[in-house]
Amino acid sequence: MVRPEMSNAARSRLQVDERRAQLLDLALELFGDRTYDEISVDEVAKAAGVSKGLLYHYFQNKRAFYVAAVEEAAARLLAATEVDREGDSPTFEEMREGITRYLTYVKKHANNFAFLLRGGGVDAEVSAIVERTREEFVERIRSGVPGGLELSPAMELTVRGYMGYIEALTLAWVAEPVVPMEQLADMIVRQCMAIFSAV
Amino acid sequence: MVRPEMSNAARSRLQVDERRAQLLDLALELFGDRTYDEISVDEVAKAAGVSKGLLYHYFQNKRAFYVAAVEEAAARLLAATEVDREGDSPTFEEMREGITRYLTYVKKHANNFAFLLRGGGVDAEVSAIVERTREEFVERIRSGVPGGLELSPAMELTVRGYMGYIEALTLAWVAEPVVPMEQLADMIVRQCMAIFSAV
Repeated sequence: MVRPEMSNAARSRLQVDERRAQLLDLALELFGDRTYDEISVDEVAKAAGVSKGLLYHYFQNKRAFYVAAVEEAAARLLAATEVDREGDSPTFEEMREGITRYLTYVKKHANNFAFLLRGGGVDAEVSAIVERTREEFVERIRSGVPGGLELSPAMELTVRGYMGYIEALTLAWVAEPVVPMEQLADMIVRQCMAIFSAV
Repeated sequence: MVRPEMSNAARSRLQVDERRAQLLDLALELFGDRTYDEISVDEVAKAAGVSKGLLYHYFQNKRAFYVAAVEEAAARLLAATEVDREGDSPTFEEMREGITRYLTYVKKHANNFAFLLRGGGVDAEVSAIVERTREEFVERIRSGVPGGLELSPAMELTVRGYMGYIEALTLAWVAEPVVPMEQLADMIVRQCMAIFSAV
């Protein structure tokens, strides 16, 4: 839908952004299912219905396309799981809401979640994106722990451990969703409180 | 030291094994510090003081060398952390002993631990080794949980979560050992019991 008040440049910019977003959707779909080496630029271009030339117009090379996909997966996960909080420390209900959004997003985009976590091994650039995303979650957890920004070293390590617990448990659950999401969210909040109480 | 009762073939086999083990030591050192792409076969051969030809005699190509190094890192970690248990469920002391061995090994070989976990992203073969190692640990944890081999789905997910917690916490601790190992081992055992109690 072309809005009449937009300039040609703005319209064209919008089209560029949309096309880029479509290509990233495709990247998440392809790389979510298979590894980097298994996917060729030819295949991507064919699946997108564009020429290789156009693909290279948006992304300099396959590597850049892959890195952009990792960044996109990270940004989507972070955006989908943000919860507003009333007080300084989250209530049980707020924690439950945050966990539920995380589980909901991951369940719906299981491949992209696994893709994001898997991506870490390859090179420094991709590792840095994964690490940055993890840091953002760690920051959110930290901001909810009483004592907040000045945690004891043991508490700091516990935040890291809890992050690993959430990731591993979630990966296992999306692979085999053996318990209902509500039950899982309840359990995670209880275990979270138990871990931090046992510091 | 050549033992006189050994046949020439046995002696030669021993030398082959020793040389192979030396090359794997070197692989763990090199790949522990840098990524796969950063290390060339030339550099490995030079550091080992052998010809590239000899290196290829032991490992078909750089990839095979890398995979063998991942397997070696996994085997060493598993061997170093095995604890004999008296009863069906581990005592606090036995849990503490297992955790302490894990931390001791990881602290001493921090790079190889990170290397092993990082390795997961690259390809299916390496992922499989990392996953197998994790499974072995999960099996050990599972065998120590009351109810043992027939865990409820929620308990099963908790075992996975606990595994992720241990890995993340340990990686953070070796990067910055902000608390003494004994304090950390105590905390981990307490948190482990807290997590499983909150299922």
